[in-house]
Amino acid sequence: MDADLLIHSAAQLLTLAAHGHKPKRGAAMSDLGIVPDGAVAVRGGRIVRVGPTAELRASVRATREVDATGKVVMPGFVDPHTHLVWAGDRAHEFEQRVAGATYMEIMAAGGGIMSTVRATRAASLQDLVAQTRPRLDRMLAHGTTTAEAKTGYGLTLDDELKLLDAITLLAEDHPLELVPTFMGAHAIPEEYGGRPGAYVDLIVEEMLPTIAHLNYRVAITSDEDDADYDYADYRPAARFCDVFCEEGAFSVEQSRRILTAAKKLGLGLKIHADEFAPLGGTQLAVALRATSADHLVCTPPDQLQALARSKTIGVALPGTPFGLGQKEYTPAREFIAAGGALALATDLNPGTSWCESMPFIVALACRAMRLTPAEAIVAATLNAAHAVGLGHKAGSLERNKEADILILDLPDYRHLAYQFGGNPVQAVFKRGELVAGKV
Amino acid sequence: MDADLLIHSAAQLLTLAAHGHKPKRGAAMSDLGIVPDGAVAVRGGRIVRVGPTAELRASVRATREVDATGKVVMPGFVDPHTHLVWAGDRAHEFEQRVAGATYMEIMAAGGGIMSTVRATRAASLQDLVAQTRPRLDRMLAHGTTTAEAKTGYGLTLDDELKLLDAITLLAEDHPLELVPTFMGAHAIPEEYGGRPGAYVDLIVEEMLPTIAHLNYRVAITSDEDDADYDYADYRPAARFCDVFCEEGAFSVEQSRRILTAAKKLGLGLKIHADEFAPLGGTQLAVALRATSADHLVCTPPDQLQALARSKTIGVALPGTPFGLGQKEYTPAREFIAAGGALALATDLNPGTSWCESMPFIVALACRAMRLTPAEAIVAATLNAAHAVGLGHKAGSLERNKEADILILDLPDYRHLAYQFGGNPVQAVFKRGELVAGKV
Repeated sequence: MDADLLIHSAAQLLTLAAHGHKPKRGAAMSDLGIVPDGAVAVRGGRIVRVGPTAELRASVRATREVDATGKVVMPGFVDPHTHLVWAGDRAHEFEQRVAGATYMEIMAAGGGIMSTVRATRAASLQDLVAQTRPRLDRMLAHGTTTAEAKTGYGLTLDDELKLLDAITLLAEDHPLELVPTFMGAHAIPEEYGGRPGAYVDLIVEEMLPTIAHLNYRVAITSDEDDADYDYADYRPAARFCDVFCEEGAFSVEQSRRILTAAKKLGLGLKIHADEFAPLGGTQLAVALRATSADHLVCTPPDQLQALARSKTIGVALPGTPFGLGQKEYTPAREFIAAGGALALATDLNPGTSWCESMPFIVALACRAMRLTPAEAIVAATLNAAHAVGLGHKAGSLERNKEADILILDLPDYRHLAYQFGGNPVQAVFKRGELVAGKV
Repeated sequence: MDADLLIHSAAQLLTLAAHGHKPKRGAAMSDLGIVPDGAVAVRGGRIVRVGPTAELRASVRATREVDATGKVVMPGFVDPHTHLVWAGDRAHEFEQRVAGATYMEIMAAGGGIMSTVRATRAASLQDLVAQTRPRLDRMLAHGTTTAEAKTGYGLTLDDELKLLDAITLLAEDHPLELVPTFMGAHAIPEEYGGRPGAYVDLIVEEMLPTIAHLNYRVAITSDEDDADYDYADYRPAARFCDVFCEEGAFSVEQSRRILTAAKKLGLGLKIHADEFAPLGGTQLAVALRATSADHLVCTPPDQLQALARSKTIGVALPGTPFGLGQKEYTPAREFIAAGGALALATDLNPGTSWCESMPFIVALACRAMRLTPAEAIVAATLNAAHAVGLGHKAGSLERNKEADILILDLPDYRHLAYQFGGNPVQAVFKRGELVAGKV
């Protein structure tokens, strides 16, 4: 067999092989599918063979060979929840929080999300792209090869479209693959103070139909001769719709109305549920068969159990309580014990979690939520890919999946959690191309 | 004025200037001595001028100029508490801890420190150096220009000397400056089970005199013509003696005996106090005028107040409770409010805190201990330098100090804490030489 790339002799090759493009649930989250002294062969940007080094070296002739002796080789991280695109920063609010102000207090005083909304509205598309690109570079250097990217700092039709355009422009010329999510329902904008219903009307009646129309246009103009990509790879303006279901943001009924409308227009669903107050967002996610329910810090036990039994992925964002200096995290052990499929994400955003490193999130999750290193890695790769609808092509090293591959300068996968605060990623391949680090 | 190097146009130049080579205490820890649009000039490895860019550019002719527009320039981090030199790892114990075993339970079962002692005793000097050097490289890349390095994984005279030799060899050819600490009193070795007094005898009667004799020999053979360095810069085999004063390790009385003997032999004193149980180690540190008392997680309030009034630096090690997944941290706010001089360190070690990044420790300290970003930076530079006896030459950007300088790819010093999990250090200068990153 011919190949473009053969990475061989890995101390541990973590395949994360699963059956039938499904996420790993419950006890299966402990299974990394490790091949000792493992190798992976790539052709045309896709994985063509995975197995013991001796077997692959005997049967694969590769243009390029990379020796990973003593290292861990694994799938690229998928970061399934980020608020990637914003302008400005909120360093001053960070100091206020250190001094004791709560996130919701700062938000009620006109800070928080609205502070970033003002800066983002004032920024040009070019500014937004320029301010965001270094974040993508750092995410890639830390091993993230696919990330979800939400809008939500525009909150007018034009500004939300500007954010979607920024995501599209960044996706076009950056190796890190982006999955766009429309999140006009991130906050009630100041100009709708006291009239949240009118803003929900705007989302449902103008924003969502406009974005769905853009998706449709992208779909019918996409290059159908490009046989390298599945239909699912066409780049919609937005693949998902997300809502911040929270006190001071959107009620369960408002969230239901928005998400139901989005679903009818063909968008996948996500929801910020139970971050600060248990409103019922998780129940709603299950009822609407959302792709993911995210945060889940104060989810009532019965809703957590129902989520675990559903097909909706639970996304824990431990960077957020960490960023806020809070002690309560997603009850991930209970969720996994109930058979749930857990994913991990950075929640990268300028308010609560300016964190671009999935390795840090893995290390944090093992300590703050008592995940084992294996569970955390499954949550940060395969299950995270399913949380953004890309489980068929990302998140594991299996034949026909895209060749998004990391070489870690670590002797054992457990070190990814055991060591913390640094960057163990030595090399990053996206669709078989070396895009960060060195070999 | 001629100079070898001029770093100019920094958005913020953090001088941390203090009066008379003293640490910053209490409210003074909020003062970073910021020069906006600042510059620093270096000649012969030392700082010769600090001030506004306009002034320095008008009066300094530099061989090399570095433009730091839009960046933060600050002193290199000093990491005043590390167990840098060890062989092997304890990734399996990390998994046990995630599953609920406590650190002291693992230690009581023959794991913990003794597990690393067995691996370290079995390693050759060359192995130890080779295993440690990549850690130094990563520390330097994260901005640490000076670090304390303890022995304590040998626990026989020969093995402790092997660790000191490793520190000496690493210090000789690595840009990161090391301050060696003898910590034979890190654990009671297995062969002294049930006879801790006999091991204390060994430390006091053989180990300490041998090491002090080595220090003396180094002192009389050091090159006195080397006018670039103070007498304090001669490289002793060990500059400090440290004791793990803890249940299951060394009692207060044993600690007092060891530290008193060390003091008579001319060593500076450090103590691991109140990490898990409040034995009285902090009181002992104050009584013996130790240079630092470290950990201080469960120090009784009256002892914390006494420490704050003393000249002993309090060293908080937030990476350790973080690494252990514990919720109790050093009561740093109370210590600073009482006028204490606080320092921060990684506690880099293979059991509780495999963390090589002072930027992460700064970000963690602001969240877990509610330090302000300014306080955390003072604690990680100037006060940390004093905690290793080098406050006269490191930890601030002031005339005649060594030119250990960082350029951070950040627009404001608060971002050092506000963002987390990455590495904001763009360039590292040690004694005026670029030793990591790029400009």
